[in-house]
Amino acid sequence: PLKLLAKINEIAMQTKNIVKDDPRKLIHSLKVGLAITLVSLFYYFQPLYSSFGVSAMWAVMTVVVVFEFSVGATLGKGLNRGLATFAAGALGLGAHHLAGITGKTCEPILIGLFVFLQAVASTFIRFFPKVKARYDYGMLIFILTFCFVSISGYRSDEILDLAQKRLSTILIGASTCLIVSILVCPVWAGEDLHLLVSRNIEKLGNFLEGFADECFRKSDMAEITNGRSSSLVGLNGVLDSKSSEETLANFARWEPCHGKFMYRHPWKQYLKIGTLTRQCACRVEALNGYLNSKSQAKQEIRRIIQDPFFSMSSEAGKALKDLAIAIQTMSKPSSPNPHIANLKIASQNLKSLLKSDLWYQHTDLLEVAAVASLLIDTVILVENISDAVNELSS
Amino acid sequence: PLKLLAKINEIAMQTKNIVKDDPRKLIHSLKVGLAITLVSLFYYFQPLYSSFGVSAMWAVMTVVVVFEFSVGATLGKGLNRGLATFAAGALGLGAHHLAGITGKTCEPILIGLFVFLQAVASTFIRFFPKVKARYDYGMLIFILTFCFVSISGYRSDEILDLAQKRLSTILIGASTCLIVSILVCPVWAGEDLHLLVSRNIEKLGNFLEGFADECFRKSDMAEITNGRSSSLVGLNGVLDSKSSEETLANFARWEPCHGKFMYRHPWKQYLKIGTLTRQCACRVEALNGYLNSKSQAKQEIRRIIQDPFFSMSSEAGKALKDLAIAIQTMSKPSSPNPHIANLKIASQNLKSLLKSDLWYQHTDLLEVAAVASLLIDTVILVENISDAVNELSS
Repeated sequence: PLKLLAKINEIAMQTKNIVKDDPRKLIHSLKVGLAITLVSLFYYFQPLYSSFGVSAMWAVMTVVVVFEFSVGATLGKGLNRGLATFAAGALGLGAHHLAGITGKTCEPILIGLFVFLQAVASTFIRFFPKVKARYDYGMLIFILTFCFVSISGYRSDEILDLAQKRLSTILIGASTCLIVSILVCPVWAGEDLHLLVSRNIEKLGNFLEGFADECFRKSDMAEITNGRSSSLVGLNGVLDSKSSEETLANFARWEPCHGKFMYRHPWKQYLKIGTLTRQCACRVEALNGYLNSKSQAKQEIRRIIQDPFFSMSSEAGKALKDLAIAIQTMSKPSSPNPHIANLKIASQNLKSLLKSDLWYQHTDLLEVAAVASLLIDTVILVENISDAVNELSS
Repeated sequence: PLKLLAKINEIAMQTKNIVKDDPRKLIHSLKVGLAITLVSLFYYFQPLYSSFGVSAMWAVMTVVVVFEFSVGATLGKGLNRGLATFAAGALGLGAHHLAGITGKTCEPILIGLFVFLQAVASTFIRFFPKVKARYDYGMLIFILTFCFVSISGYRSDEILDLAQKRLSTILIGASTCLIVSILVCPVWAGEDLHLLVSRNIEKLGNFLEGFADECFRKSDMAEITNGRSSSLVGLNGVLDSKSSEETLANFARWEPCHGKFMYRHPWKQYLKIGTLTRQCACRVEALNGYLNSKSQAKQEIRRIIQDPFFSMSSEAGKALKDLAIAIQTMSKPSSPNPHIANLKIASQNLKSLLKSDLWYQHTDLLEVAAVASLLIDTVILVENISDAVNELSS
């Protein structure tokens, strides 16, 4: 029983964390409950029930299956389901009719053949990359409905009535989802993508800004390591954000105009900025690896490139944070960006420092040069991000 | 009409490419068609139909929804669907019964309340990371079935009969999927993961082996660029393989013992090797970037580190290809690996070359050092991959 209690406690903690992390998840759960309750009214009220009958259940099922976290995903799934049901229903009726005119013996064989061919073709089409990305669910529903209509037709004479009822209940379910999803605290995939991209840039900026301070100025190493390891988790989050950005961009394309975003907002540009951010984060992570390594060269490196390192990483951090704010507020970033200009100068200084004879006396040349070249790379990527953000704002 | 013809031609080409790329996709489509035809027999034959009636349609639906490309995915979905239907059906019957004893007026209100609470709780549970990874589909089916059973119960008196029929047809559908999926040209997710990981290592090995040759020895640069760009696509494939490896490992866990793989094969170790491979590929990509840049330093770099570069990249390539073969054949890699030993020596040589005074006369120190340090990093990662493969084989 103690174990059980601990388990329950753990689940409660997890629940609390999820809600604290993103209260919209709790709201989404309530929205799903609301939508299901709304459509189930068709079952409870006699006048509504008498017009749809048992088919009303399809409205409930549609809500359960179609209701997704963001408006874009719900809209995409709803449209997929509605259109696929309509198309497959019409084709299924056609197949049923065609098989019917050949007579009673041939009918099941012909229907079986149609179902087989359709299933093979549709399943194969799902492997096309473009179809897989946007219409996978629609293809599934297409197979489902075609089988349902054409096979049912063999046993039921009211097939037309059945198909029509099913389609209308699915439309009711899908529109209930959409209305609840848009009217009650809507979650827009486009907005999420917008925030995710700008927050990733901000995280990277914070990391870079804190970099110089923590690695070069302070003395208490243990404390630093703790602070860094938590912000390193943030950095890893940036590195792993590719698939979530792509998913959000895919959903965002379905969304109508909302808030500050138009219907055809340049979502692809966000993906481009995201990719550059990840490349930059990759360099910063490598930099972090060099500076945290236990090698004796560390002291050496620090002494030599302390000043350029400090100014470059803090300027890069500030430049990134400016860009993040520019994205968030959808304003044009100040141009020419003063931090970027400073970065270019610092980068030149570092290069000439490396070419000077001054530091040939030091033995751990290799690591110094590696750190320096990573820094210079980082600066180039920051400039690229700045260009991409400028392009987005124009 | 010309445009349409071009479009059709394009689709035909794409189809051909998909089949050529992976003929199992065509076979999978045929398998789905076969499974659907098998379960639809329940509808055509009178003796089978009379025992299940319209519920037989659920078997067809189950096949359409559950049948996935690999055995592991099909098994996971089938188990999720079967268990969730059973659990939700039992709970739904309980809710129906509980609401029934309170009288006719309270019944719809109580059922509505149960459905609402259940939908909110289940939707929220789907956000738990562990549940999302493995039981997301099960939770969806749980909500669906609970709503179906408890709401239907309000209108239909044969609810127990309905639930039992539905469960048995779902079991028939799921087992048909499994049998077809395992007996007809099975696709094992575990085997795919195994091959993907070893092929990625092989690709990286080939890239490294060809590196030295193409960049340093040959003269025709245009031809080289073409060759490299196609193998660079391969390298990018390695870098992007994270999510597919994780998906495959998730499916592989459901699979029973097959071929050379036991039920609890260490799939996680494959993910570890995959991560190391990607890290190594990241370094190699950076290396490639330096060597392909148009800077004037290139000639300088080449002259200085031509010999160590050539030996290191070709030895690293050979070492990786050996490891890939060891994974593929599931044999223990030769230990101590001669290529790894050579790599260590070459790495030491390069380090001492960098520390010698010999090359201080060259100006483009920075890039030489960057290339050298990337090479040394690559070698360290190759050693780590070798350790991880050793661990897998033991």
